[in-house]
Amino acid sequence: MVHISNPALEKQSDDHFHHLGITKSAIDIPQMYGDVKFICMGGSTTRIKNYAEAFAKEVGIKMSDNLSTTDRYVMYKTGRVLWVNHGIGIPSLSIVIVELIKLLYYAKAKDVVAIRLGTSGGVGVAPGTIVLSSGAVNGELFDEFVQFIMGEKISRPAVFDAEVYQQLHKAAIQLKIPVQIGKTFSTDDFYEGQARLDGAFCDYTEQQKFAFLNRLYNEGVRNIEMEAICFAAMFNRGNIRAAAVCVTLLDRLKGDQVLLTHNDINEFEMRIFKVVSTYIKQQLNLC
Amino acid sequence: MVHISNPALEKQSDDHFHHLGITKSAIDIPQMYGDVKFICMGGSTTRIKNYAEAFAKEVGIKMSDNLSTTDRYVMYKTGRVLWVNHGIGIPSLSIVIVELIKLLYYAKAKDVVAIRLGTSGGVGVAPGTIVLSSGAVNGELFDEFVQFIMGEKISRPAVFDAEVYQQLHKAAIQLKIPVQIGKTFSTDDFYEGQARLDGAFCDYTEQQKFAFLNRLYNEGVRNIEMEAICFAAMFNRGNIRAAAVCVTLLDRLKGDQVLLTHNDINEFEMRIFKVVSTYIKQQLNLC
Repeated sequence: MVHISNPALEKQSDDHFHHLGITKSAIDIPQMYGDVKFICMGGSTTRIKNYAEAFAKEVGIKMSDNLSTTDRYVMYKTGRVLWVNHGIGIPSLSIVIVELIKLLYYAKAKDVVAIRLGTSGGVGVAPGTIVLSSGAVNGELFDEFVQFIMGEKISRPAVFDAEVYQQLHKAAIQLKIPVQIGKTFSTDDFYEGQARLDGAFCDYTEQQKFAFLNRLYNEGVRNIEMEAICFAAMFNRGNIRAAAVCVTLLDRLKGDQVLLTHNDINEFEMRIFKVVSTYIKQQLNLC
Repeated sequence: MVHISNPALEKQSDDHFHHLGITKSAIDIPQMYGDVKFICMGGSTTRIKNYAEAFAKEVGIKMSDNLSTTDRYVMYKTGRVLWVNHGIGIPSLSIVIVELIKLLYYAKAKDVVAIRLGTSGGVGVAPGTIVLSSGAVNGELFDEFVQFIMGEKISRPAVFDAEVYQQLHKAAIQLKIPVQIGKTFSTDDFYEGQARLDGAFCDYTEQQKFAFLNRLYNEGVRNIEMEAICFAAMFNRGNIRAAAVCVTLLDRLKGDQVLLTHNDINEFEMRIFKVVSTYIKQQLNLC
């Protein structure tokens, strides 16, 4: 079962989800969301909508309207699969995860798997490769998700489910899509935090940059993005298994600028979708 | 002048801004952006568009189309004022600030002021009050913006320009809009990080929550949001003066849920706009 841990919430007479714009008492949450088995998330609203539409078409299921009533996030439902965007970065992601966990807890959903479908920078892998996260490290290169609560630093484990990423790996191999399992470096910053040379500020040299990226490679990191460590840690707390499936848009050992055409990016982004939709169809016997 | 500090960037033959979707060589940046004096930012795409439209109408200037070509951010221009959304949280904000600083540096813009127009939780102030940030504290309650670069923790000052917030204060008084100058608590988390009792997880008691919020109040904090400390620190590095003008949607000393109607929220959000547009019109002699 999806799990929450908040005695105060049980005493609250109603619950308004500020960022999804849903009020608990206004809808029948178990009837609407009780069947959810997969939460598929990505940063961009457009991409998530495209994925939801493509999935609905593939499996011949009706896609819902946007179920979020704010402009902060979008949420679509295609049968037992929810498609939700999370914006850029951990703070934006953490908000919608809390609201999704509450939603699926009220819905009495069980055996839920959450999958992040994202873009990333590769570390020593060719552009277009799917990286399945086996673990994640934070800005200090520790494998823990850090929160500040009441001014105190709290660290939590971030575990990706090995069964899920092995099944996703099989799906990618079947589809002949280049794939690797590796660690993910989750940063709070796209430019300096990822040792880029193309931001407005850069106090390090090219040599220092490559030394850092090589250190990441040697520690098993294969891609860099801005959400996976929080994605695993927070869903883990809600008793939801987590996976991160990110395509690489460039190899950071070769450059910093994303120089792909729109068509290349679209094709790469559809690789993520193909892997995840194949896996979900296998799990739900929708093939 | 807008300032960057990155020797590597000078050597780069072209520059593609990945999240605004702008390529330096493809447009005449000084011609298009050289006149910018104000950058107005807020989280939501819809709100920023509404503000830009309202400003264009008020001053009788044409509003540009959306100048961002990605779905990550929107950017509109009304004469010497840019309107850009930043999403939720510091990571999302930091990306677009880097790209804006580079844009205005290439544009040779000077004497630029950046203003965040945001929503926030109040601490001991009535809902609907405008809080002008005089300073900001992070999740550990230190008045410094933290970045992790090459695995190392770097702290930077976050300074709000006193002349700017005093002028904004005067504008609010003229408009008879309730206003306070105070410190802002900038968190990376909306629920536990802000000591809410209405998230999925809560390991603290109501007593601990109120002790923490009272401690914030006693340290001069008057509102809580998720961006201001980065907003000031990063624009400061680019030699751009910064202000944060946030309306409070609730008093956190009285509750956690935002229970305003859509109309209330719209009216409160327009208070921010009225204060900022009055100030900008005074500065640009557009009255």
